[in-house]
Amino acid sequence: MFYVPNSFLESLLREDVPYGDATAEGLGISDRQGMIECYPKADGFVCGIDLAARLFEAVGLEVLLQEKNGTYPAGHTVLRVQGDAGRIHAAYKTAQNIMEYCSGIGNRVLSVLQPAREENPRVQVAVTRKHFPGTKILSLYSALSAGAVVHRAGLSESLLIFDQHRVFCRDFAADLAALKVKEPEKKVAVEVESPEEGLKYVRLGADIIQCERFSLQDLKDFSRAAKMLNPSLVINAAGGVNSANAREYAASGADVLVTSWVYFGKPFDIKMKISSVPEYR
Amino acid sequence: MFYVPNSFLESLLREDVPYGDATAEGLGISDRQGMIECYPKADGFVCGIDLAARLFEAVGLEVLLQEKNGTYPAGHTVLRVQGDAGRIHAAYKTAQNIMEYCSGIGNRVLSVLQPAREENPRVQVAVTRKHFPGTKILSLYSALSAGAVVHRAGLSESLLIFDQHRVFCRDFAADLAALKVKEPEKKVAVEVESPEEGLKYVRLGADIIQCERFSLQDLKDFSRAAKMLNPSLVINAAGGVNSANAREYAASGADVLVTSWVYFGKPFDIKMKISSVPEYR
Amino acid sequence: MFYVPNSFLESLLREDVPYGDATAEGLGISDRQGMIECYPKADGFVCGIDLAARLFEAVGLEVLLQEKNGTYPAGHTVLRVQGDAGRIHAAYKTAQNIMEYCSGIGNRVLSVLQPAREENPRVQVAVTRKHFPGTKILSLYSALSAGAVVHRAGLSESLLIFDQHRVFCRDFAADLAALKVKEPEKKVAVEVESPEEGLKYVRLGADIIQCERFSLQDLKDFSRAAKMLNPSLVINAAGGVNSANAREYAASGADVLVTSWVYFGKPFDIKMKISSVPEYR
Amino acid sequence: MFYVPNSFLESLLREDVPYGDATAEGLGISDRQGMIECYPKADGFVCGIDLAARLFEAVGLEVLLQEKNGTYPAGHTVLRVQGDAGRIHAAYKTAQNIMEYCSGIGNRVLSVLQPAREENPRVQVAVTRKHFPGTKILSLYSALSAGAVVHRAGLSESLLIFDQHRVFCRDFAADLAALKVKEPEKKVAVEVESPEEGLKYVRLGADIIQCERFSLQDLKDFSRAAKMLNPSLVINAAGGVNSANAREYAASGADVLVTSWVYFGKPFDIKMKISSVPEYR
Amino acid sequence: MFYVPNSFLESLLREDVPYGDATAEGLGISDRQGMIECYPKADGFVCGIDLAARLFEAVGLEVLLQEKNGTYPAGHTVLRVQGDAGRIHAAYKTAQNIMEYCSGIGNRVLSVLQPAREENPRVQVAVTRKHFPGTKILSLYSALSAGAVVHRAGLSESLLIFDQHRVFCRDFAADLAALKVKEPEKKVAVEVESPEEGLKYVRLGADIIQCERFSLQDLKDFSRAAKMLNPSLVINAAGGVNSANAREYAASGADVLVTSWVYFGKPFDIKMKISSVPEYR
Amino acid sequence: MFYVPNSFLESLLREDVPYGDATAEGLGISDRQGMIECYPKADGFVCGIDLAARLFEAVGLEVLLQEKNGTYPAGHTVLRVQGDAGRIHAAYKTAQNIMEYCSGIGNRVLSVLQPAREENPRVQVAVTRKHFPGTKILSLYSALSAGAVVHRAGLSESLLIFDQHRVFCRDFAADLAALKVKEPEKKVAVEVESPEEGLKYVRLGADIIQCERFSLQDLKDFSRAAKMLNPSLVINAAGGVNSANAREYAASGADVLVTSWVYFGKPFDIKMKISSVPEYR
Repeated sequence: MFYVPNSFLESLLREDVPYGDATAEGLGISDRQGMIECYPKADGFVCGIDLAARLFEAVGLEVLLQEKNGTYPAGHTVLRVQGDAGRIHAAYKTAQNIMEYCSGIGNRVLSVLQPAREENPRVQVAVTRKHFPGTKILSLYSALSAGAVVHRAGLSESLLIFDQHRVFCRDFAADLAALKVKEPEKKVAVEVESPEEGLKYVRLGADIIQCERFSLQDLKDFSRAAKMLNPSLVINAAGGVNSANAREYAASGADVLVTSWVYFGKPFDIKMKISSVPEYR
Repeated sequence: MFYVPNSFLESLLREDVPYGDATAEGLGISDRQGMIECYPKADGFVCGIDLAARLFEAVGLEVLLQEKNGTYPAGHTVLRVQGDAGRIHAAYKTAQNIMEYCSGIGNRVLSVLQPAREENPRVQVAVTRKHFPGTKILSLYSALSAGAVVHRAGLSESLLIFDQHRVFCRDFAADLAALKVKEPEKKVAVEVESPEEGLKYVRLGADIIQCERFSLQDLKDFSRAAKMLNPSLVINAAGGVNSANAREYAASGADVLVTSWVYFGKPFDIKMKISSVPEYR
Repeated sequence: MFYVPNSFLESLLREDVPYGDATAEGLGISDRQGMIECYPKADGFVCGIDLAARLFEAVGLEVLLQEKNGTYPAGHTVLRVQGDAGRIHAAYKTAQNIMEYCSGIGNRVLSVLQPAREENPRVQVAVTRKHFPGTKILSLYSALSAGAVVHRAGLSESLLIFDQHRVFCRDFAADLAALKVKEPEKKVAVEVESPEEGLKYVRLGADIIQCERFSLQDLKDFSRAAKMLNPSLVINAAGGVNSANAREYAASGADVLVTSWVYFGKPFDIKMKISSVPEYR
Repeated sequence: MFYVPNSFLESLLREDVPYGDATAEGLGISDRQGMIECYPKADGFVCGIDLAARLFEAVGLEVLLQEKNGTYPAGHTVLRVQGDAGRIHAAYKTAQNIMEYCSGIGNRVLSVLQPAREENPRVQVAVTRKHFPGTKILSLYSALSAGAVVHRAGLSESLLIFDQHRVFCRDFAADLAALKVKEPEKKVAVEVESPEEGLKYVRLGADIIQCERFSLQDLKDFSRAAKMLNPSLVINAAGGVNSANAREYAASGADVLVTSWVYFGKPFDIKMKISSVPEYR
Repeated sequence: MFYVPNSFLESLLREDVPYGDATAEGLGISDRQGMIECYPKADGFVCGIDLAARLFEAVGLEVLLQEKNGTYPAGHTVLRVQGDAGRIHAAYKTAQNIMEYCSGIGNRVLSVLQPAREENPRVQVAVTRKHFPGTKILSLYSALSAGAVVHRAGLSESLLIFDQHRVFCRDFAADLAALKVKEPEKKVAVEVESPEEGLKYVRLGADIIQCERFSLQDLKDFSRAAKMLNPSLVINAAGGVNSANAREYAASGADVLVTSWVYFGKPFDIKMKISSVPEYR
Repeated sequence: MFYVPNSFLESLLREDVPYGDATAEGLGISDRQGMIECYPKADGFVCGIDLAARLFEAVGLEVLLQEKNGTYPAGHTVLRVQGDAGRIHAAYKTAQNIMEYCSGIGNRVLSVLQPAREENPRVQVAVTRKHFPGTKILSLYSALSAGAVVHRAGLSESLLIFDQHRVFCRDFAADLAALKVKEPEKKVAVEVESPEEGLKYVRLGADIIQCERFSLQDLKDFSRAAKMLNPSLVINAAGGVNSANAREYAASGADVLVTSWVYFGKPFDIKMKISSVPEYR
């Protein structure tokens, strides 16, 4: 279960409608009864539905229908909500933004994952901490909803050595060995820029080699050689992974496709169809 | 002055390094002395420099050089910071993410604004509230830094009538008139989907007509006709405005190019060059 | 819909009853069953009822009756709630404070709005950002509930030029023109201290002239002259507007009565009648 | 020391200038250099100066002169600050609001305290928890700055029995005795509406009798009689205490004047004089 | 009623499961249906049950059975909850931690209170502000649940003079007298390290003498002598009070046993029995 | 670098001194000048010094001397601070609580780590998420300061299978295999209650076996057998590890001693010596 606290959803509503809705109030329509139906404009993956539903409930609307996050055809209603027009207007754009941005990430994850899995059913798509600051919770929620895993959420929970660390090391082999002793419960990943560098760190005991912007041929060669040294080695392909090259990376021996690319790009269009309903109260 | 509170910056650091940096600690490099220099990889607009500097200061580093937000050539150092390697590693990725995502928005704003201004030096680029939820402060900061204005930050401060409002109106002319009476200090904008619709609302007293996905020819025709009815009318072009068509929209009579397109897209690469410095303490 | 987040209401409760209620616990009455009925002590406008109800629900009480914000006769029960005495005591004073302070603002708004409207049915009462720091949400909620509009909630969303700006301008006419070009979607207001000053800024293109402490005669003369220059000009009367002079300001040509006066003054008394109920559980 | 956290001051700034200052930016004056001098318009007590200074520093201005909270003659500069016009405009109104509302409370406290002390140098003014919700920290800060004490800040730390408690008691004498046993470190206060009621509770062991809306004669009679029963009894006068009657209440035997009246009323005017300064950078 | 806000409970969940539960998701069990039953492993006092129940509800589970805080035999189910395995795993450890740490405090309070009460049915156990930073709300909740009172929650609400104050006093008798005049609604406590010191402050008017690490004989002697000077004096025993000596302290004349000892020590074991239930949906 | 945000430290101060310090104010000593010196009462490990220093600075005091976290002899001053008595009293108890509770954890970590390391220099002490709710940041800070590592900070970042998961698995071997495929960048830990169970999961591919309450002999036998199956297996000893048995666990083949025991227990006494200093201002 991916827990998203109410206080986070409240803060999104609050910043969009801090002191009432001047337009709806001025038009005098706040008390009219309405319905809103949300559906994707194109076939695709929709997530954030549960969060949108909670936003609508937070302003006092009634959720009539709510689908699970998943893949739906264009026009399929994933959320139907009813209540005052004033409440609908207070929440619908924030709900739409959540579903559209989250689903955008979700669809990009799938656009990497699906072709990659056709080559290698065991390959994983793993997302980095290079998301828009302030969106860690929604970005990871979206990526996980679509089947990705977390490469790393932050600095405290995983071990990944960059060149920016090595520049401070005086005896890297010793430092790496010390790190492995210090953190036996975690795998040690090392980012490298060439197959030679990669093989060196395999020999030094790295559990994961993160291949930064390797050519496909280099990746293939490296994978073969490295896994002979350590059959349980994990090979990450990183730097430039996207939907266009995912299949080839997966075919070239990578176990994990590490990507930030899924975090940015177009939102996925969700139509928010609002209609008036007869008032029987 | 665009005020960004410390508590916001603290929360970004906190979520990236909640319980220390396991890699830097395990490698034993935290106390080494280092320097970080930040520069764009390509010519372009860089913003978020002040925020990055504050992040570095928040972890106890010393800022040696800090440029203002602005346009710089590739390789021009916009920020130079010195101190413990452990502190550099705790903050640099968050600082980079802020500068890269913010500058990405900034450069997209300029890619719309500059060609548009060549056609019409008075035209404005105005950004919507359709940003990634959780990024309102950074998204607006970035857009304003690059010369955009805020179309609307939320529902409380501006009047913009969509079809989603009209569906609840029983006598729209009367409701619009009531809105104008109620909010004399604000302009009333109406979003329309055709020139005919636009002219109708000009006659009803709209101050701003927001033309949603008009063809350039329609926009041109509408502008001419509408401004004859009301010379002080403001015409917004909205729906699909981007760098590729900004010049033509500006040439077609729009006063304001309303865009959400600038909010999403690639971050602008900022190199974070970390080096070791001799320890003279 | 004026959205007030739960987290705000929780923080009010939390600061009033941080670590339990020593009196009710010490007396041993917390588990007794009770009812609370809330009504105005005098005829008048009551608002904050919805917020009070949510406070009571937040501590686990049951709301039996809840009126909408509006004008009620003395003694008319606007809220009736039932449950444990301990819960009633935990919340009732905070609930009372909200209703009393909010209704105080509401009644002062009406005391300005009603006589003004008798003179000019189109006149508006607009509230400033000069409220008690920390009360922006409740102060604006209260004012809007009673029919006021927001003059400005802050600096980001409206354009209002004070003398404190002009002191920095080297060529004010040019700066004002630049502002109008930069912000076509917003009206530009200028605060002035004399009719002559006002006419000068009308000629420079101000959309709104805010007349600070004009005599009624000056206001009348200015209105006539200024509206001949610009029939769609909006005239704000500001500085010293209150219930005693609202009618005359409205009669003197002001379109908007801008006031901070409504923010301070006596709370409006709401009786919180607590009674014991038989325990049938 | 009355501690006010930065996060609170930041939140006040943030809500007044959430996304930049559209007026100052549009006029192009943000980078001009300026000075702001703050002084009371009339002789009186000024507090919140330290908080205002911290607000100015929070936006990057330099504090040149800062007086302590205290009584000053009209025109005496209590705070002088220098820096960018954009920063001055971002903070000055919030700083002014704090000083004006806080000083308003402070002056009202003094208007009660000073005449009361002339009658009885040992009398105290004590403030209740009936302040505007959201202002507990500023309201108590202001009252204490001017020499008041806290009657009660909330329900957790003091024992005050109202009729709203007694309605749930089946054997009040026993319940009161139990309360005294349970909380030996605290005094027990009982609010009463008549001298007879008061004497009854003195006999039952109340440490403090809070006389709600007693006539001055009743208060005098009650004080004499009650202190004969218990010489260390504390007598609170409550309900309607204000500057007009403080002297007489103090003369009538009250030890403590309990008041909420100081919380509401006019802010105390503080002039914020902004001037341009030559730019020598 | 001890009010604990949702936002606090949400923050506990959030920090334990910030971005989903990698284990439950990876095992593919999140959607299975389950039940959790919570019971103490040994006879004893259990509190935090209401908070645990609210945590489970916050993640969408259904509470089937919930006991009040109180003393239960080993194996007695105090909370039974049903729903998705993924939701159970998201919340159960936080729920367990709350119940175990809170009940640990509760049982230690009872281990002091019960023997002390056998000697002196009027004696109180009062808890200090020396709890683990960040746990004030849970620590006081737990202590009060078990029958303790709050010695002091912080500096604003009670008067307690330490040697650390006296070091700054130039004429302590005068300062103490001034304090008593200034705060007539509160009792004045003075911490002392010897009977002689204690008697001196009784003569100066202290209402409470806090005896720091007195021998039992000293405490007995002091109590007799001091209460002859002031029969309503309150005597606190502090410094080293625990379950082993509570009875003797109570027998030696102390009215209040002031303790921080209850705050630290072992959590009280609560078994969280999770079982699979048939899925009938 | 272990980042602790200001907002957290501010919240601790705020809750201890919400509305001023009634004792220091009432005694009239707030403006006196003082110094505070902090030192351990016994030889031992002291941490939280940096946090204490920041607390003192947050209330406006000057830090004169500040040691790093580390082991010091009794009486060695680790922090010396100077300024107003009122500010010292506002912060010193919170500063003391932080240093005492954090150092308590730190010393318990060392009491496990040091004997264990004498047997096996590569053994690690790893701390769980079973800390007092609300103290995750301080508890992990303290443990890491003393040389422990984080076993798991929460559910999102590590894979640990309990019996509470297995109860929902229909084919555990398949589920475990799926988990390993899904999360190649993380090690998979399985908690077991017997050597037989442990060997079964080693064969199924677990990377870490967490031995819950094994006898020392069982642990020794299991280690030998299991490491023959998988030489890179990591063996955790968990459940009941403490300073008394750490050495033997380390000698019995455990690579990691997993403990919650360090989280609870006595704070480590830090003397806060406050003295008056001559006032030369």
